[in-house]
Amino acid sequence: MASYDSLTFLTDYGLEDGFVAACHGVAARIAPAARVIDVTHLVQPGDVRRGAAVLAQTVPFFPPAVHVAVVDPGVGTARRGVAVQAGPGILVGPDNGLLSWAVAALGGASQAFQLTNGDLWLNPVSPTFHGRDIFMPVAAHLAAGADLASAGDEIDLADLVTLPAPTSRVHDGEAEGEVMSIDRFGNVQLSIVAADMGTLGIGYGTPLVVRAGRRQLTVPFMETFAAVAPGEIVAFTDSAGLISLAVSAGDAAQQLGLPPGAHVRLSVARPA
Amino acid sequence: MASYDSLTFLTDYGLEDGFVAACHGVAARIAPAARVIDVTHLVQPGDVRRGAAVLAQTVPFFPPAVHVAVVDPGVGTARRGVAVQAGPGILVGPDNGLLSWAVAALGGASQAFQLTNGDLWLNPVSPTFHGRDIFMPVAAHLAAGADLASAGDEIDLADLVTLPAPTSRVHDGEAEGEVMSIDRFGNVQLSIVAADMGTLGIGYGTPLVVRAGRRQLTVPFMETFAAVAPGEIVAFTDSAGLISLAVSAGDAAQQLGLPPGAHVRLSVARPA
Amino acid sequence: MASYDSLTFLTDYGLEDGFVAACHGVAARIAPAARVIDVTHLVQPGDVRRGAAVLAQTVPFFPPAVHVAVVDPGVGTARRGVAVQAGPGILVGPDNGLLSWAVAALGGASQAFQLTNGDLWLNPVSPTFHGRDIFMPVAAHLAAGADLASAGDEIDLADLVTLPAPTSRVHDGEAEGEVMSIDRFGNVQLSIVAADMGTLGIGYGTPLVVRAGRRQLTVPFMETFAAVAPGEIVAFTDSAGLISLAVSAGDAAQQLGLPPGAHVRLSVARPA
Repeated sequence: MASYDSLTFLTDYGLEDGFVAACHGVAARIAPAARVIDVTHLVQPGDVRRGAAVLAQTVPFFPPAVHVAVVDPGVGTARRGVAVQAGPGILVGPDNGLLSWAVAALGGASQAFQLTNGDLWLNPVSPTFHGRDIFMPVAAHLAAGADLASAGDEIDLADLVTLPAPTSRVHDGEAEGEVMSIDRFGNVQLSIVAADMGTLGIGYGTPLVVRAGRRQLTVPFMETFAAVAPGEIVAFTDSAGLISLAVSAGDAAQQLGLPPGAHVRLSVARPA
Repeated sequence: MASYDSLTFLTDYGLEDGFVAACHGVAARIAPAARVIDVTHLVQPGDVRRGAAVLAQTVPFFPPAVHVAVVDPGVGTARRGVAVQAGPGILVGPDNGLLSWAVAALGGASQAFQLTNGDLWLNPVSPTFHGRDIFMPVAAHLAAGADLASAGDEIDLADLVTLPAPTSRVHDGEAEGEVMSIDRFGNVQLSIVAADMGTLGIGYGTPLVVRAGRRQLTVPFMETFAAVAPGEIVAFTDSAGLISLAVSAGDAAQQLGLPPGAHVRLSVARPA
Repeated sequence: MASYDSLTFLTDYGLEDGFVAACHGVAARIAPAARVIDVTHLVQPGDVRRGAAVLAQTVPFFPPAVHVAVVDPGVGTARRGVAVQAGPGILVGPDNGLLSWAVAALGGASQAFQLTNGDLWLNPVSPTFHGRDIFMPVAAHLAAGADLASAGDEIDLADLVTLPAPTSRVHDGEAEGEVMSIDRFGNVQLSIVAADMGTLGIGYGTPLVVRAGRRQLTVPFMETFAAVAPGEIVAFTDSAGLISLAVSAGDAAQQLGLPPGAHVRLSVARPA
């Protein structure tokens, strides 16, 4: 019966209502000794894929924790809630794929339980606020030392809903991927991992051809966006180990018009 | 001389300045053992009614705490500051009605004091930042174990400023109320309580007629917004126990154009 | 080997990604006993001056702490990272002037070290996320009791990068300054300190002439913005001890069109 010092919390609840705070209150009542670290609550409403990406890129930097994530357009319907042991952490949330990339980032699932034990929930349960009434209470009980198996019925790991992995492959001298996410700075994160650049023999300083739809541009591949002049486009390996496009002191997403999901190919620029 | 593990904090200070942080700093100096839970700081500047609604719907989920709330367009004028014991909690803030709905939600006031004891304040006091210099210091001293009576002069509970309760009544087969608030998802929360639907004999699955001004529409009353198809309007009992209007996977406030305060009537749809 | 109970954290990372959370995670792993107080993460990307102003006006209200600040458009270039002892606090961040006004607000620097000891960093270090991989880990080690000198090579205090102090002087019966910052309420904070008003013999209740570019207006100097009618412009001493212009229940920055950096002069209004 391990206990956890930390709970982490990611939602699409926003910060202008009291939703996040009510969940913090529930955590403080059930697990007063646990610290709660907010991951973000500004996932666009219902954007499960974006929530999954942020969570997966953040969990490796936390101490062992119970991670609560709620982007849950299907709240109140038949979709089930789950608690999943993955490496040193436990993930709690709706079984809609939101947790799946973080599960992988923590080393894969070793055990999973459907949240069926109402003794760990608030009573009554609102049909539209499972974050407050089910997910956070269960997570707080687990942080406070309740056994993972007390959450409910064990389920087959193969039955967990997983989001399809983003496109990422190397063929014919090209790395192919898609836009994973856009950050506050307008940096365009691709699903192409740094290692693929090595496979293609692309090192820092090399000019790259970026193809997206009908557009094609050549940009330098540098260690950081600050290595080029303000206003210039650059490709670099970002802090999650993925290739990103940036405009130094500017907004690449706006300038390039590349939304999440857009298909992108990278290759070495050949002399004409 | 009880002490409290938790302080909660609601303001209209926003998150882009250092105002909230300065108050957190003051709390950490005076009551280092207390956790501070932010309720929200994104109340629209001066919107006392919105602050009151969020606070009242959130306080029931906190552990016993000292609740600091500051939406205070009259800061520096004759309006007084108060500390109010209500059920297991203490509320500290301006006596402008902001605290009144939360006082009720916690079971009503049992004692109230005007903040007149400057020994508990920072020195000097800025005429425009009582959150930092008066309310949070007093609250932190109370959390750290100071007696409530040390805050200042006791005042008559009947003298506390209260916001008028929102319209909510049942007559002639209709439940009548007003828009309480709009949340991040665009859900339109009404001041009509779930029990009123029971009085009218309206159960889940029943079609409802919604009247607002000259407009009239018929929507299903369901357990959750996820029970209807994306884009459809639905009425449901929200997580605060109030009837709300939502558009599944959409923004009801935008679609219906119903601002806070708008008058709304609900009744059973009769076959033509 | 002092340790610190508190870390404070200011960035331009925004709240919609996992950047801030990853840093909180790092702090929790290295200094689990320290509380982390967020100052703000909504500094406009790369606005070093704005970050410096918010930090300087906030640090006096914190307990002794290690203050981490990262507004770092030059991340990954030759600009160095530093840890600076100033009064009861330690400031950690890029040496680009961001820390300089806070250093002054804490009583001036007594010792400074370049962050050259990689043993205190995460490994590997991302070239674009020194907040997570260098600044927060170093700060957390210092909070947990590591000696300041362990951060790296001592540097000459005179070599620290400082932002130029904002214009602020009194001459010819005028106080001259510039717009320091605009807060959430649209209040326009000037770099003119309250004491300058005393020098000019301007007390509360006095009408003031405000000159900015070709514009000139006369406004009352009052103790608080709430002292004038809604919609009226007023000058007051703000919570940082600086003269500010406000519109009661309105937005002065919008109404006056005065951006940060704009030159402003104040003088006593003379009877015609």
